[in-house]
Amino acid sequence: MNIIIAMDSFKGSVTSMEAGEAVASGIRTAVPGARHTIIPLADGGEGTADALVRATGGHLIRTRVTGPLGEPVDATYGLLGDGETAAIEIAETCGLTLVPESERNPNNTTTYGVGELILDAIDRGAQSFIIGLGGSATNDAGVGMLQALGYRFLDETGEEVPRGGKALGAIRSIDTAAVHPSLRGVLIQVACDVNNPLYGEQGAAHIYGPQKGADQETVKELDDGLRNFARVVREHFGIDVQAIQGAGAAGGLGAAFAGLLGGELRSGIDLMLEAVDLNEHLKGADLVITGEGKLDAQSSMGKTAMGVAGLAKELGVPCVALAGSVTEDAAALNELGVTAYYSIMWEPMSLKDAMESERTKLNLSRTSHQVIRLFLRSN
Amino acid sequence: MNIIIAMDSFKGSVTSMEAGEAVASGIRTAVPGARHTIIPLADGGEGTADALVRATGGHLIRTRVTGPLGEPVDATYGLLGDGETAAIEIAETCGLTLVPESERNPNNTTTYGVGELILDAIDRGAQSFIIGLGGSATNDAGVGMLQALGYRFLDETGEEVPRGGKALGAIRSIDTAAVHPSLRGVLIQVACDVNNPLYGEQGAAHIYGPQKGADQETVKELDDGLRNFARVVREHFGIDVQAIQGAGAAGGLGAAFAGLLGGELRSGIDLMLEAVDLNEHLKGADLVITGEGKLDAQSSMGKTAMGVAGLAKELGVPCVALAGSVTEDAAALNELGVTAYYSIMWEPMSLKDAMESERTKLNLSRTSHQVIRLFLRSN
Repeated sequence: MNIIIAMDSFKGSVTSMEAGEAVASGIRTAVPGARHTIIPLADGGEGTADALVRATGGHLIRTRVTGPLGEPVDATYGLLGDGETAAIEIAETCGLTLVPESERNPNNTTTYGVGELILDAIDRGAQSFIIGLGGSATNDAGVGMLQALGYRFLDETGEEVPRGGKALGAIRSIDTAAVHPSLRGVLIQVACDVNNPLYGEQGAAHIYGPQKGADQETVKELDDGLRNFARVVREHFGIDVQAIQGAGAAGGLGAAFAGLLGGELRSGIDLMLEAVDLNEHLKGADLVITGEGKLDAQSSMGKTAMGVAGLAKELGVPCVALAGSVTEDAAALNELGVTAYYSIMWEPMSLKDAMESERTKLNLSRTSHQVIRLFLRSN
Repeated sequence: MNIIIAMDSFKGSVTSMEAGEAVASGIRTAVPGARHTIIPLADGGEGTADALVRATGGHLIRTRVTGPLGEPVDATYGLLGDGETAAIEIAETCGLTLVPESERNPNNTTTYGVGELILDAIDRGAQSFIIGLGGSATNDAGVGMLQALGYRFLDETGEEVPRGGKALGAIRSIDTAAVHPSLRGVLIQVACDVNNPLYGEQGAAHIYGPQKGADQETVKELDDGLRNFARVVREHFGIDVQAIQGAGAAGGLGAAFAGLLGGELRSGIDLMLEAVDLNEHLKGADLVITGEGKLDAQSSMGKTAMGVAGLAKELGVPCVALAGSVTEDAAALNELGVTAYYSIMWEPMSLKDAMESERTKLNLSRTSHQVIRLFLRSN
């Protein structure tokens, strides 16, 4: 009996690792001798670095970098078990939660700290990067990050433009002479589950600007700035970043990673599953248990349960998915390789009570226990 | 693939049959060719006659009898598929819900209608009775029922006492000359899941009197009456009804059935399982699905899921139990033969919303679907 436990976090309640450990405890009480391996998962959002570190036996690094408003912040990233791959969540250095609500304005916020984290990781031997893009407070097209990496963005007088989204419109040329040499040969993979282009009606400023604090006028200004950035990049590098699906992710960081740093924008869960080598773990497994806070149509469109089920189905491994809340359209998951899915709820209760972390752990444990019993047809 | 569906009702939400049909629909969509048999169950309470009629292919009979306050009421009982067994819920003729709240007083209420139903069934060929005792408004030790069957309870002047609990204290002798002759040879089995004696601190009046509308003084009076009834019965028949566990059920109807009519007081679910011949149905089954509104320690002490699981375990048939609410102590059910149990909840919600009958049906169907998929390890 070999069971793989590949849980995502239950956001706002338990981490991937906590969810995995709760499932494991339910399995152990049902089948004391069962071999099980916990592989915490994430989708590129919050908890991705921690999950990858735990899944690969790596370690976390905490370092001081430049925050979204230029102030110093302590940011954490992961160096994975292979010693060569760094996992960075950009929200650690330029996340919306780092900016007081009254000061939220993408005109002023910078991704500079992301570049500093990348350099810190390179200094520690990283040659490969996994980047989580969620939760940024910025709309600077990654210019701040690129500045930290040695790119110089110059205005019409040849002066370097300041940090922040507002400066994008002033860029007239790019000087790459001082770009950090170690960036060459570095592999960058970016977890990106949005398709927004850099600018325009579906672009970063229009779609994500308001939730970052931009008013109507600022959105327009930011959108113009992104358009200008794209124009200068096209002139300088011959690259059309507007053509890149997902370039608008994280206020245009998608464009910087994919257009200038040679990064690959990928589905978050696919990237994670590859990073933790889930395929290899599943070979010879009798069952895989996955899950996340909610299973719904969105899950069916690329999130954890579907990703795990896809691999499981290829290998003929039964796959059970658990969630706090399971919408009716989750039925599609059965078609995609989920043998069976269950809610971990055990009685009617409010969402608030259901999300209490100790309760989530208990509910996961209880449900896993019954799942294993039915799987084994214990009697 | 042969699946037995033996659901109890989800009280206040769906009947046994509705629950069974919902489970069946979940099975059919998972395994279109699966053979399944719905055997609605009950525990002796509300819905017992209907469940037995449906499980055995019998029919319901509606007839006018005497209500708890002497007024006419239309009562329904079942004649089971064998044509010889009648299933009577006493609440149909003397239930608390038949008495307006302002008039609830066990001094005045009678079980007379129960006797009339029994006679009606005998007239239609019934030779065997299954009696459900729940929900009575009475505390007359079944004297009313016995009066309808021809027993005469006489006071010190030799006059027949009136109906109602208040009259018990006046009984001095019993005249059985006019007892309906067809009662001889009739088999009576009573679903009784309480152990209360007829009188005393744990007796019918003290424990159940208040919820039937008796104040402190009335409780005392009723208790004295029950004690007097027991004394007269002992003198007349040499039977100690106070020694009968459960004699205090339904305001002392337990004493009348077990002490005077030769009835057997049995665990409700055991009686039901035997009546529907579940044991026979389970032979050769691949799986049995049972369930009820709530699975808890009480369930573990004799209710539906445990009863079904016990039979299933003996026969080596995997058993899955479903409920709206499952308490932690339900874990004991696994030891008793429940392969796995699940809540049918799919997301956090209020008890009120969860009990909406269409939702319960949908939740049952969805859960059964996933249960079958896991059971078959579909992928």
